[in-house]
Amino acid sequence: MDIASIVGLILAVGLIVGSMLMGSAPMTAFVDIPSFLVVVGGAMAAAMICFPLRSILGVPKVMLKVMLNKNEDVAVLIKQIVALAETARRDGLLALESEIPQVENPLVRTGLQMAVDGSTPETVEEVLRTEVNAISLRHREGKGVMDQLGRFAPAYGMIGTLMGLIMMLSDMSDPSGIGAGMAVALITTLYGAIVANVVFSPFAEKLGLLSRKEMTGMEIAIRGVMAIQSGESPRAIDQKLQTFLPPKQRTQE
Amino acid sequence: MDIASIVGLILAVGLIVGSMLMGSAPMTAFVDIPSFLVVVGGAMAAAMICFPLRSILGVPKVMLKVMLNKNEDVAVLIKQIVALAETARRDGLLALESEIPQVENPLVRTGLQMAVDGSTPETVEEVLRTEVNAISLRHREGKGVMDQLGRFAPAYGMIGTLMGLIMMLSDMSDPSGIGAGMAVALITTLYGAIVANVVFSPFAEKLGLLSRKEMTGMEIAIRGVMAIQSGESPRAIDQKLQTFLPPKQRTQE
Amino acid sequence: MDIASIVGLILAVGLIVGSMLMGSAPMTAFVDIPSFLVVVGGAMAAAMICFPLRSILGVPKVMLKVMLNKNEDVAVLIKQIVALAETARRDGLLALESEIPQVENPLVRTGLQMAVDGSTPETVEEVLRTEVNAISLRHREGKGVMDQLGRFAPAYGMIGTLMGLIMMLSDMSDPSGIGAGMAVALITTLYGAIVANVVFSPFAEKLGLLSRKEMTGMEIAIRGVMAIQSGESPRAIDQKLQTFLPPKQRTQE
Amino acid sequence: MDIASIVGLILAVGLIVGSMLMGSAPMTAFVDIPSFLVVVGGAMAAAMICFPLRSILGVPKVMLKVMLNKNEDVAVLIKQIVALAETARRDGLLALESEIPQVENPLVRTGLQMAVDGSTPETVEEVLRTEVNAISLRHREGKGVMDQLGRFAPAYGMIGTLMGLIMMLSDMSDPSGIGAGMAVALITTLYGAIVANVVFSPFAEKLGLLSRKEMTGMEIAIRGVMAIQSGESPRAIDQKLQTFLPPKQRTQE
Amino acid sequence: MDIASIVGLILAVGLIVGSMLMGSAPMTAFVDIPSFLVVVGGAMAAAMICFPLRSILGVPKVMLKVMLNKNEDVAVLIKQIVALAETARRDGLLALESEIPQVENPLVRTGLQMAVDGSTPETVEEVLRTEVNAISLRHREGKGVMDQLGRFAPAYGMIGTLMGLIMMLSDMSDPSGIGAGMAVALITTLYGAIVANVVFSPFAEKLGLLSRKEMTGMEIAIRGVMAIQSGESPRAIDQKLQTFLPPKQRTQE
Repeated sequence: MDIASIVGLILAVGLIVGSMLMGSAPMTAFVDIPSFLVVVGGAMAAAMICFPLRSILGVPKVMLKVMLNKNEDVAVLIKQIVALAETARRDGLLALESEIPQVENPLVRTGLQMAVDGSTPETVEEVLRTEVNAISLRHREGKGVMDQLGRFAPAYGMIGTLMGLIMMLSDMSDPSGIGAGMAVALITTLYGAIVANVVFSPFAEKLGLLSRKEMTGMEIAIRGVMAIQSGESPRAIDQKLQTFLPPKQRTQE
Repeated sequence: MDIASIVGLILAVGLIVGSMLMGSAPMTAFVDIPSFLVVVGGAMAAAMICFPLRSILGVPKVMLKVMLNKNEDVAVLIKQIVALAETARRDGLLALESEIPQVENPLVRTGLQMAVDGSTPETVEEVLRTEVNAISLRHREGKGVMDQLGRFAPAYGMIGTLMGLIMMLSDMSDPSGIGAGMAVALITTLYGAIVANVVFSPFAEKLGLLSRKEMTGMEIAIRGVMAIQSGESPRAIDQKLQTFLPPKQRTQE
Repeated sequence: MDIASIVGLILAVGLIVGSMLMGSAPMTAFVDIPSFLVVVGGAMAAAMICFPLRSILGVPKVMLKVMLNKNEDVAVLIKQIVALAETARRDGLLALESEIPQVENPLVRTGLQMAVDGSTPETVEEVLRTEVNAISLRHREGKGVMDQLGRFAPAYGMIGTLMGLIMMLSDMSDPSGIGAGMAVALITTLYGAIVANVVFSPFAEKLGLLSRKEMTGMEIAIRGVMAIQSGESPRAIDQKLQTFLPPKQRTQE
Repeated sequence: MDIASIVGLILAVGLIVGSMLMGSAPMTAFVDIPSFLVVVGGAMAAAMICFPLRSILGVPKVMLKVMLNKNEDVAVLIKQIVALAETARRDGLLALESEIPQVENPLVRTGLQMAVDGSTPETVEEVLRTEVNAISLRHREGKGVMDQLGRFAPAYGMIGTLMGLIMMLSDMSDPSGIGAGMAVALITTLYGAIVANVVFSPFAEKLGLLSRKEMTGMEIAIRGVMAIQSGESPRAIDQKLQTFLPPKQRTQE
Repeated sequence: MDIASIVGLILAVGLIVGSMLMGSAPMTAFVDIPSFLVVVGGAMAAAMICFPLRSILGVPKVMLKVMLNKNEDVAVLIKQIVALAETARRDGLLALESEIPQVENPLVRTGLQMAVDGSTPETVEEVLRTEVNAISLRHREGKGVMDQLGRFAPAYGMIGTLMGLIMMLSDMSDPSGIGAGMAVALITTLYGAIVANVVFSPFAEKLGLLSRKEMTGMEIAIRGVMAIQSGESPRAIDQKLQTFLPPKQRTQE
């Protein structure tokens, strides 16, 4: 588990809340529930127009995923593939049948099952690549929701501020209220900037990164399956797949 | 029907109107017909310069499409293709002729008709792909209109505000009118931000998403037709096409 | 002729001028020749640095093209190609020689002339594609000039406003002149926003659209020539090329 | 020589200086050496962090190139290639050896020398294409320096203005000095906008255009060399290469 | 070592600090530790959400790399490859085995070892290209961290300024404090602009440039290995690889 996301989130919130507490104004100057509703509710509403309900409802799950992300260990995956390649080399492709249910990686499982069932390498690769494309598209949609939230939050913040300014300006009979009116008007812009730069934008970035990581794992899985099916030597497979790892993580022989 | 777009639109409008009603200023402070004309009329006029009249007149239809979008059920399409593949396998490609008129999907219909008429697989694929490209281009134009409206609305909002400021500044003989003048000047910017972020930008995003969904359905149709023509087994076709579905929607055998 | 561009331009100008006339300030508050020179002259000067003189001098012609654009009728082009294919099928490729001078489309003319002269299909396609690429590049340069004008106009508007503000601020001995000074300073920003959003940006968009339309026509021409040279049946050519048309424009057989 | 760049530069500077002179404030209100140093020096310093010293020192040379650009005459290049093709056709490839030193275009020279030395067409093309890629990369770096300068100048202008505002705001004991303080603060923003929009951005654009022009010339050179080596007829080569010219510049036969 | 980055950094900092010292306000007007924490701490926290902890902790190392970058001498690399090619030509590929440990470039070492071990050229190229892709991805992540820092710093600067403005506006009982309050509020925006434009953005640019340089070196290494394995003549290899050098650095024969 990569705790950077959680630590970063706590740190960012802490710095902002700390600055508010240390300031000359009371904390209440920064709290305004209707402003919060306009900014976060508005951004959510705009995102609901853009995406199917299912994607919006998936936001909490996606955010949890960012904070708890457990990367599949790519080095372990490579080891499993090499072990499978050894079995296939020694006892033939069909000998893999009994081992397939134990394989964790779904792409390797699907691919080997197809190979055992006699599909041609072209068909296996086509099915696996289509699968990966579909996953990549779903990832992009998840990131897209975050991106749009990060774009709409400041926009609704600005809408709120404009409404506040117009209210304040259309009734300036009490000059002493002007400052307070502007302060309230600015709160939506502040909220928009905070939720966009503390939550939505960084989470969208992280989702993109996690997706690229998963794609590397899937590329390894596909290449591994193809190599097993074409009967390459386990050692050659190991060498090929290790190139996907950063040098430090490679196992020396 | 995906009601998210409609719910999102109502929610966004509700939040904004609610904030206006709850504010200290009367609702009339936010209503100014000429300002609305400058922003929405201006954005429409600019879009008319960019696009053919037909595309502009199609905006209401496109917006309705976003709100009522009925996705073709891709799982059903796959079932139909597999059923057609079974007929073709059992009774030959020509046996499809009588079934073609019942096929709903126009690409499958065109493709199978060509196959039955004896076109080569290359010709069938070329015709279908050209068709899909043309549809994709038309989609992009529809999205393009929305994108441009979402870009011009804030621009015309700013033009209106600049005009209002210049009017106000060139006659400051009555200082008490300055606030009201600025309030009116800001209304066009507010309108520009609202129509762009409540309507045009989210609708443009949604159109992009719907287009990508349709493209997936079309890819399935093309691959299905190609597979039927090349005489693949219905089971292999089913497996291949199911990869386009999210895992939960796949039918277990 | 697509009148949308002209109607849009008149509408946008009308809305802006109408708002100025309806405002509380006299129309003269919005007219300032030196400001206009800084914005439009400055944008033109910056564009002159970017592009060869010929491209800048071509701007009025390009703008006229946008407003008067006569799309080549693609359906007519397809009919001509099919007719030529019939002649070629019936009487041989050489029989086209006498018909070539009547062909309007320059790509079809060049391509068929080369085919009749005995060039290989590869050479014909290479020459035609190079030609299309060159045309596409020239289109992009025309659009590029408009894009840059649309980008520099607001920039020079801001430069003008900054100069105006500095002038006003460096001499505030007469407070009553401050408002008028700021009004004048803002005029360049207004002009920059207007010329960019009423003229340059929409015209650049339109040029892009017209170019894409022309590219479709050229793709049809190239595919038609290639199909005629390879001796495909007129009916197959018709079917292939019609896919480029929107469904409603296709001729039913 | 294309004088548009020089005329444009003079025009842009003239318009801005003219507006300053015509304004109510004395010219000295716009001159502030430290502000100039922060903006131009800061942008240069930031660019020095981004690029190797050599690229920064090359800026004056690159700017001179923009203003004095002498396009290689592409029509002349085509004529030379056709003449070389005639020699090669008549007297064999080796007959070119004596003519190579007179060839001006370095790509044609290198390519033909390699062909005469017996390199395979694949090797010749690979070497020439690598060369062109390397030139394109160097061009992009030159344009990149200008782009970054055009991006950093306004940023350092804003930094200067923020510093000026903070200075002014932290000592408001003398209200009559506020206007002058703000005027000085705004000067860096003005300088940033001017150098970016009069010099850096337009010059970056021009460099991109010049690079694309040179690339076309190089493409002609490569295709010419390949055609000569493969023994194509001078007439066919002429026809092929002329397609790169705009229609008006083509020589009629 | 390219000192431009260090000189540029010192120059940029010097210009800004110099301007602060020369200004009318005391230097203390520009120093505010909490503001610094909000901007730099906030940007770091946001980046921590986006990237794994390892990438954030690598920032100082990456910054040092930018300032101390020692480009591998590409000309030397080419000489080494040519020398290896001579050995391979003279004594056979296996004769390289003893020389491999002395080779500095890891790609050349890996590639030649594989070639000596009998891998096919296709496998060698695949392994080397995968390696280069992986390195490129890691570079992009390093640049990505800098890019995000350069994007979040101004955003957190704006958040700080908004908080400061709200504080100031919600208590305007003492008008004489308004100026000072705004000055403090603006400091975070100033800090955000400075760290983004003096450090993060230029360093991100530089990292991109260094990565492209390294990629060229790796392309040379791969092409060199492939050429040695396919037994090309040292002279031909030299000629091919020299094309990657700028003309001045090429060794004349």
